[in-house]
Amino acid sequence: MTEIEAAVEEVELDEARVEAIREAVDARDRDRIRDLVEPLHAADIADVLEQIDPAERRAFLQLYEGEIDGDLLSEIDESIREEIIEALPAEVVAEAVRDLDTDDVVDILEDLEAPAQGRILQALDIADRVAVEQAMAYPEGSAGRLMQREVVVAPEHWTVGEAIDHLRAAEYLPDQFYHVILVDPRMKPQGYVTLGRILSALRTKPLRDLTEDSFRTVEATEEESEVAYIFNQYHLISCPVTDADGRLVGVITIDDAMNVLDEEHEEDMLRLAGVGEEASVLDGPLATVRQRLPWLVINLFTASLSAFVISRFEATITAIVALAALMPIVASTGGIAGTQSLAVAVRALATRDLTSANARRVVLRELSAGALNGMALAAILGLAGGLIFADPWIGAVLAMAMIVNQIVAALGGVLVPLTLERMGLDPALASGTFVTTLTDVMGFLAFLGLATLVLL
Amino acid sequence: MTEIEAAVEEVELDEARVEAIREAVDARDRDRIRDLVEPLHAADIADVLEQIDPAERRAFLQLYEGEIDGDLLSEIDESIREEIIEALPAEVVAEAVRDLDTDDVVDILEDLEAPAQGRILQALDIADRVAVEQAMAYPEGSAGRLMQREVVVAPEHWTVGEAIDHLRAAEYLPDQFYHVILVDPRMKPQGYVTLGRILSALRTKPLRDLTEDSFRTVEATEEESEVAYIFNQYHLISCPVTDADGRLVGVITIDDAMNVLDEEHEEDMLRLAGVGEEASVLDGPLATVRQRLPWLVINLFTASLSAFVISRFEATITAIVALAALMPIVASTGGIAGTQSLAVAVRALATRDLTSANARRVVLRELSAGALNGMALAAILGLAGGLIFADPWIGAVLAMAMIVNQIVAALGGVLVPLTLERMGLDPALASGTFVTTLTDVMGFLAFLGLATLVLL
Repeated sequence: MTEIEAAVEEVELDEARVEAIREAVDARDRDRIRDLVEPLHAADIADVLEQIDPAERRAFLQLYEGEIDGDLLSEIDESIREEIIEALPAEVVAEAVRDLDTDDVVDILEDLEAPAQGRILQALDIADRVAVEQAMAYPEGSAGRLMQREVVVAPEHWTVGEAIDHLRAAEYLPDQFYHVILVDPRMKPQGYVTLGRILSALRTKPLRDLTEDSFRTVEATEEESEVAYIFNQYHLISCPVTDADGRLVGVITIDDAMNVLDEEHEEDMLRLAGVGEEASVLDGPLATVRQRLPWLVINLFTASLSAFVISRFEATITAIVALAALMPIVASTGGIAGTQSLAVAVRALATRDLTSANARRVVLRELSAGALNGMALAAILGLAGGLIFADPWIGAVLAMAMIVNQIVAALGGVLVPLTLERMGLDPALASGTFVTTLTDVMGFLAFLGLATLVLL
Repeated sequence: MTEIEAAVEEVELDEARVEAIREAVDARDRDRIRDLVEPLHAADIADVLEQIDPAERRAFLQLYEGEIDGDLLSEIDESIREEIIEALPAEVVAEAVRDLDTDDVVDILEDLEAPAQGRILQALDIADRVAVEQAMAYPEGSAGRLMQREVVVAPEHWTVGEAIDHLRAAEYLPDQFYHVILVDPRMKPQGYVTLGRILSALRTKPLRDLTEDSFRTVEATEEESEVAYIFNQYHLISCPVTDADGRLVGVITIDDAMNVLDEEHEEDMLRLAGVGEEASVLDGPLATVRQRLPWLVINLFTASLSAFVISRFEATITAIVALAALMPIVASTGGIAGTQSLAVAVRALATRDLTSANARRVVLRELSAGALNGMALAAILGLAGGLIFADPWIGAVLAMAMIVNQIVAALGGVLVPLTLERMGLDPALASGTFVTTLTDVMGFLAFLGLATLVLL
């Protein structure tokens, strides 16, 4: 079998294979497990581990122990990685991490407790250990944690031929590199050249004539969300990382940036929904309760605000009990409108489409859209309410309350995240609770208040 | 000034510069605009265009017309791209798109009306036009639309030296390429070699000894969301695209896949919030109303369900009017819990962490978490309600209704998207409305139903 055939044979994971692997694990059939798992990419093996039950997972690890490599450990979801590393013998883990690039080792270490970290660090070569420890010295979530320290550099005066000879002679090259970074004698990056350009240029061509027009570096202390933004905005493939003096200390590649972007999205989506950003479908019930209960308790208190507002109008409700049935319509439609406006605003803040340059225009847009939606909904609800209760004044109160609350919802949805952002907080955090509390309270207040004025 | 210095001078966009550009536009100062805009990356110029008012935008385009290139058109948000292309003279657009790769031309054409498309196609060289038309023949949102047709291939029997000589002699190479794809005589891809490996190997080395272990191709008709998943899951940098016969027709690079991933996230987030997935902070009020009103009207009807349920209990509310104030607490806390469970489930379905292999376990997890959250909230609310109303039975009714609704919310949040997914629909679509309707109706029903049984 040639290497090329071996390469093509990597299979996709499907549900039948997951089932077959489970059966093989239940039957403790080591050979069958290996036959089923071997053709899979490490990312798919990790998915299998995530999808099977915890008990099956332990059995699988025992049976498959000998084949576990660093790539597999890297791919496993953070929510179960610690469990898996604890379940494996220390020497298996040590052997597995040895062939990873420093950024992947750091990624694994970050989520472990100190003793487990220590065991893995012990297993590394001294050079790798120092590199990993230096990376861990940068703050969590910084470019320094994300970068690999293995860089491919050339002095800025080299030619294409010199660079190629140097690369051919190099004992070790990173798994992934897309540029040769040109540095000055003090290791400050001066530009970079894509490998494609080096390959297609004549050997005598100076590298500095081939540098990319667009060249950016980030400082190691920069936040990873900023790094993800830069990659996405400027379509970077790799980006040199410098220390405070501007000297090259590492490089971040697009796969890491894509990962961060993916996590940022997840964070936004989960935070908007009021779930801890580390929530995973793989968590157990207790972890789930820990992530969700705090927001539910907060909501219990904010919902009591609505209850308080309603309780002020008990006389009105006693007089016309139908109002009790109608009031949630105004509040709930307001909640939906607030969520709509909020989702668009949070997304636009994340992509930096909403800035102070256009905030005023966007707020005015929300105001008009809220008023228009309110009038359309008011027409439907007012007509239906007036007809059903054979009382045009009930229809009128419903309609007016709806317009007020739609405007409040549209404005709240954009003003709450804008305010949080200006205060230096995450605009997604808690926005949902703020906005729905606002629309609930305003919905009940507008409806019952108007009803008291008009109908009594 | 050397090229390297020019490269380093590209500046980041900040708000002061946006302000300065606006002032220059207002002053019709062509030179000042050029000075301010030239050091910016095309992506940042596009952001400026997006952030300024429509009237300023038209003035800017008139003054900056001569400098507009294809990269800038590519970077502009779809929501205003058509407006901008219409505002520019046809020959400016034609000239601008001429230097783009086919995938970028296709991306621009997709969103234009037929006459505007025709004008741009006319401007292309015949070879490019054919390539673009072939790409446009693939369905929207397919790999065929996403790929660039400019590929770098080598016969599978070549050596490193032959490949390098071929690249050096090539008249045209794509802007971005990271692999040389090995093809058989019928143009079927057999593997690929990274440029890094080619650069570091001896000239006599056969390419087939350097191919990557992990090699995947996609068919041109594959959906782009699948393509984004494959890039993210397997950490690909580029991926060859084949026709139905397995012959190479193009290649997709990671920047395009990252773009799709970003759009998919946006879609999920906006759909969950009940907003059309093309919603942008740049849309005008009318476009905003068009995106949002349909879901608001649907919600008006689903909210009427809650109103109907409440109206069945008017006798109970007349007897104890305090119930009207308390009932939204149970419903609203249920809504939050449903949204939490839903966000985690939709995210897990998108990343394929939730499959039929573990669906049962996840549903049971939600059931337990819902019950635990319900009991915790019931304890707080039951105690508070009992004390405030000096009636333990009101507390008991609140507590029981809370437990029921928390369980319904947790289960609904995972079962609704699972069901939509199994029906072949987007699990994010309409899930939010379903789940909050469910928790509202169940919240009112459980609370008022139990109150009728226990308190009357």
